Amino acid sequence: MTIRSEGVAIRVDDAGLPGTLISPAPLMPGFLFFQGWNSTQAQYVPRAREIAALGCLCLTFEPRGVAEDDPKSDVVTREENLRDLLAAYDLLASRPGVDPHAIALVGSSYGAYLAAIATSLRPVRWLGLRVPALYKDEDWDVPKARLDRKVLHAYRNRTIRPEENRALRACAAFHGDVLLVQSEHDHTIPPPVIANYRNAFGAAHSITYRLIEGADHALSEERWQRSYTSILVNWAREMVLGARESGTAAEAQVDATGSPRRRAPARA
Amino acid sequence: MTIRSEGVAIRVDDAGLPGTLISPAPLMPGFLFFQGWNSTQAQYVPRAREIAALGCLCLTFEPRGVAEDDPKSDVVTREENLRDLLAAYDLLASRPGVDPHAIALVGSSYGAYLAAIATSLRPVRWLGLRVPALYKDEDWDVPKARLDRKVLHAYRNRTIRPEENRALRACAAFHGDVLLVQSEHDHTIPPPVIANYRNAFGAAHSITYRLIEGADHALSEERWQRSYTSILVNWAREMVLGARESGTAAEAQVDATGSPRRRAPARA
Repeated sequence: MTIRSEGVAIRVDDAGLPGTLISPAPLMPGFLFFQGWNSTQAQYVPRAREIAALGCLCLTFEPRGVAEDDPKSDVVTREENLRDLLAAYDLLASRPGVDPHAIALVGSSYGAYLAAIATSLRPVRWLGLRVPALYKDEDWDVPKARLDRKVLHAYRNRTIRPEENRALRACAAFHGDVLLVQSEHDHTIPPPVIANYRNAFGAAHSITYRLIEGADHALSEERWQRSYTSILVNWAREMVLGARESGTAAEAQVDATGSPRRRAPARA
Repeated sequence: MTIRSEGVAIRVDDAGLPGTLISPAPLMPGFLFFQGWNSTQAQYVPRAREIAALGCLCLTFEPRGVAEDDPKSDVVTREENLRDLLAAYDLLASRPGVDPHAIALVGSSYGAYLAAIATSLRPVRWLGLRVPALYKDEDWDVPKARLDRKVLHAYRNRTIRPEENRALRACAAFHGDVLLVQSEHDHTIPPPVIANYRNAFGAAHSITYRLIEGADHALSEERWQRSYTSILVNWAREMVLGARESGTAAEAQVDATGSPRRRAPARA
């Protein structure tokens, strides 16, 4: 994503004036969005438009069974939705003009949980997690809707070490930049879950942690939605413009994560 | 510069997931810089790099006789330097990937004066003027270095109406967005000149006027240089990102200026 300089001669009358053309790199970052359970891609479209205005290619999509009225809601598994996310990633990263070293995953709740796991399966430079959910590794292939809520609730009120959980393990190995957004009054994702994620990001290049005051899990008031949009777009602007200005240094840093360009997914 | 949305199908297992690709327009804005008399293109290169990071193609150049040690300094005329500016404009606007409806001219002092005039000869969407100089229309073809300094000084301490001066007439007819930057302690361009420019921009789409406190004409202290960089880059960011987000509305507004795409210059 380096800025390039090129000398040019400007012809005028009998002279050739020395000029310098300074251009952005020809490749653009890619941003992939994964909304929460019972939500649709429409949630992220306006945010994606703002991020596209920064010169990024953005992709929102509808994973199987995630929308509230989707007939597959009762049977879809984490494994299937992770495969959906990876398929969307592969489509985005292979689009002409996209820089495969500059891919962002942005997710909410269930989508954030799967986005965290996906960083262990694909190269990801920027990871935006809003109220990321957490599940036990076991029952991975049990439909999400059939998981025991009581067991889940107890699990989400415990301290979990990164090595105990697939998503947290992926966060611990993540070397890119992180945005982590919490809702102050979140009964679905209580504070210990956010603390578990925060503590897992020991190797991250940068961490931007924000709390939306007064907000519930679903950001049911418009002003909370606006807060999240503002937090997300500001972070994206800082990441994208910073990467363009720092150029090759930033690329080298990403390469140093040891993430291979395209590894065959272990489970997905 | 519209953001575009496109439906895509994401293949996974036997399913085709609905996705939405949201992409910036394929064309980028162009920014052309014209430094002041006795200065070189190096002055604008670091600023151009920051603006290139916004996804713009930037061009700096060396007009004839403008650099302090240029042997043509004593003989070059405004007519010749205006031709230099138009030649640089034409090179920039015709580069592949540049949006000819999104060209910015940015100039300082003598360069700002010629940039203002150039808006009457080429389509310009954004005009950034730092301490723009002002000259009488007469003696247009007399070498700039031979103009009577005493007459010039008197002229720059008068109120000039737009119809009395070629550069101010161009400003009065300009329908794009304007940045006007003054130095507080400027003995070369005294306050009446800045007031004449400010008053001329009656038809501008927006005006951003800033004063750099304590600064002299040449911004001889590093902190004044930083102030100008910050003002210029913030303005460019607002203009470029705003134009991308507002999309076709902004394009329609530029078309409404009545500026033809490429008119044969009247004098140049």
